[in-house]
Amino acid sequence: MNEQQGIKPHVIGLDLGGTNAVFGIVDQRGDIKATTAIKTQNYDSAEAFVNASINALQAIIEQTGGLEKIKAMGIGAPNGNYYTGAIEYAPNIKWAHETAVPLAKMFSERLGNLPVSITNDANAAAIGEMVYGVARGMKNFIVITLGTGVGSGVVANGQLVYGSDGMAGELGHVTMVRGKEGRLCGCGRTGCLEAYCSATGVARTARQLLEETDRPSLLRKMNPADITSLDVSIAAGQGDQLAREIYEFTGKMLGEACADFATFCSPEAFIFFGGMTKAGDLLMEPIKKSYDEHVMNVYKGKAQFLISGLDGASAAVLGASAIAWEI
Amino acid sequence: MNEQQGIKPHVIGLDLGGTNAVFGIVDQRGDIKATTAIKTQNYDSAEAFVNASINALQAIIEQTGGLEKIKAMGIGAPNGNYYTGAIEYAPNIKWAHETAVPLAKMFSERLGNLPVSITNDANAAAIGEMVYGVARGMKNFIVITLGTGVGSGVVANGQLVYGSDGMAGELGHVTMVRGKEGRLCGCGRTGCLEAYCSATGVARTARQLLEETDRPSLLRKMNPADITSLDVSIAAGQGDQLAREIYEFTGKMLGEACADFATFCSPEAFIFFGGMTKAGDLLMEPIKKSYDEHVMNVYKGKAQFLISGLDGASAAVLGASAIAWEI
Repeated sequence: MNEQQGIKPHVIGLDLGGTNAVFGIVDQRGDIKATTAIKTQNYDSAEAFVNASINALQAIIEQTGGLEKIKAMGIGAPNGNYYTGAIEYAPNIKWAHETAVPLAKMFSERLGNLPVSITNDANAAAIGEMVYGVARGMKNFIVITLGTGVGSGVVANGQLVYGSDGMAGELGHVTMVRGKEGRLCGCGRTGCLEAYCSATGVARTARQLLEETDRPSLLRKMNPADITSLDVSIAAGQGDQLAREIYEFTGKMLGEACADFATFCSPEAFIFFGGMTKAGDLLMEPIKKSYDEHVMNVYKGKAQFLISGLDGASAAVLGASAIAWEI
Repeated sequence: MNEQQGIKPHVIGLDLGGTNAVFGIVDQRGDIKATTAIKTQNYDSAEAFVNASINALQAIIEQTGGLEKIKAMGIGAPNGNYYTGAIEYAPNIKWAHETAVPLAKMFSERLGNLPVSITNDANAAAIGEMVYGVARGMKNFIVITLGTGVGSGVVANGQLVYGSDGMAGELGHVTMVRGKEGRLCGCGRTGCLEAYCSATGVARTARQLLEETDRPSLLRKMNPADITSLDVSIAAGQGDQLAREIYEFTGKMLGEACADFATFCSPEAFIFFGGMTKAGDLLMEPIKKSYDEHVMNVYKGKAQFLISGLDGASAAVLGASAIAWEI
């Protein structure tokens, strides 16, 4: 902690999602001092969104001692590009889906030239783990976010890997099933890790197994289209064999993928983040078992498999705020 | 170039192979001022090897102005670990295959406490490209070495990715063919990129195609066990259709693998290094075509596909020497 941080003990974090834009004022220990939110999609333009954001922010900035206590702002957003400071063609945000919105610059100008950085949600999660979470003190690790999609943030030599264009770290889109039998992925390609191991992928596996077999399962009581990964997890917790196998299949594939990832950067930990980690050992045990079976000898036994150390409800805001300490 | 480098204009590079240990005194432009070599396996102990090395080195050190002109030494060696400065359990070097030999320290002590660094051959190639070769000015790229095996060196944010244990960058061992039909790899696992796309892998593909089909080919004139990747390349150059298909198969798999690698670090270039690159477009065209077909949209058209810019005969020594400038 340098002197400047001593004088300016707070940062702003913005977790910009498809539904809510959640702001937090955060201190160096990761305590959220104040928080507020607006609806992401209630605005027709990026300018209108930033105006509403500044209005909402002003209240919590004053509440925590004013702008002079704030060192910087970090934004975690889909398709956030660290290099350009823009959200680029974010499919789920109507004022950003056809263009690149220079959100970092827009916030900075409205906040007295405060330094503002932006990155995607998974990268924000990775920096969040490094600053406040289970990756404190680590210099080489991978965060894998398991939500609607599968995202990732890769830290090597203590730095986030942004790549040549700011878009590195899309490990949800390595190909796990090659050729025609690969599942169609949201990215337009087939066989991606995300198509199998996201929350959506788990639900697809459930529907597929229910349709292709006549094995009994508690999940048969539901309308197949309504099944979520949480339903599968609950059924597995109630001893449902089919549901357990779905998590085993998912974990096995994640473990194989992690064995491939190890050849890249030999991380000291794989850290799993997001709603699906609530399944706990149901997911983590098959991941670890499969990793041990598939990883190269030279890496065996070296990586830890951890669940995010950030508080679930505020993890995304903490992640976003963590970027601000790195500016 | 700082003042110290001005005073000490040379570094020593050692390319330590299973057969030859080649030394070079190299200047900042990558010109090899003097070179010498000894046989790696003619010695029963690491000490005896270092003694013989120092004897050989002394002649070329004097020839180029003495030890005071030398800034540092870099060693590229199989299983060289940058963090420990040791060669660890290198299967093909009899005085290092059952132990970790602290080679950097041993050379440093015999050379007046000269700074000495060690890394594996593929990492040395990557630094070589960054210092003297086609990656000058690049901060994010991947070198893929195609030889007896498939090695790699990953540079992100301008730094080599060594990982938590110094052993990162084994992209030859990502799994390309999952399940039982994967080829057995030298690492003991199955389906690795190396089992298909190394020079050895290309020869295996040739033998397999000749055995499983009765298609005509110039390669049928040879004893199958004697076929090398060079023979396949020569036959392809003579218009042999089967030989061309072998390179297409190899390039297609390399392109698919590179599409996966892009999700990690979005490199500005993939640089291919080693004997197999002599096949030129025969190999590079199918790689590029397959990459374009398989890579995520967001990365499309961003990465260059290059062949090493280091002179073939001395590339390994240059790569090793390049590590010394980074100390």
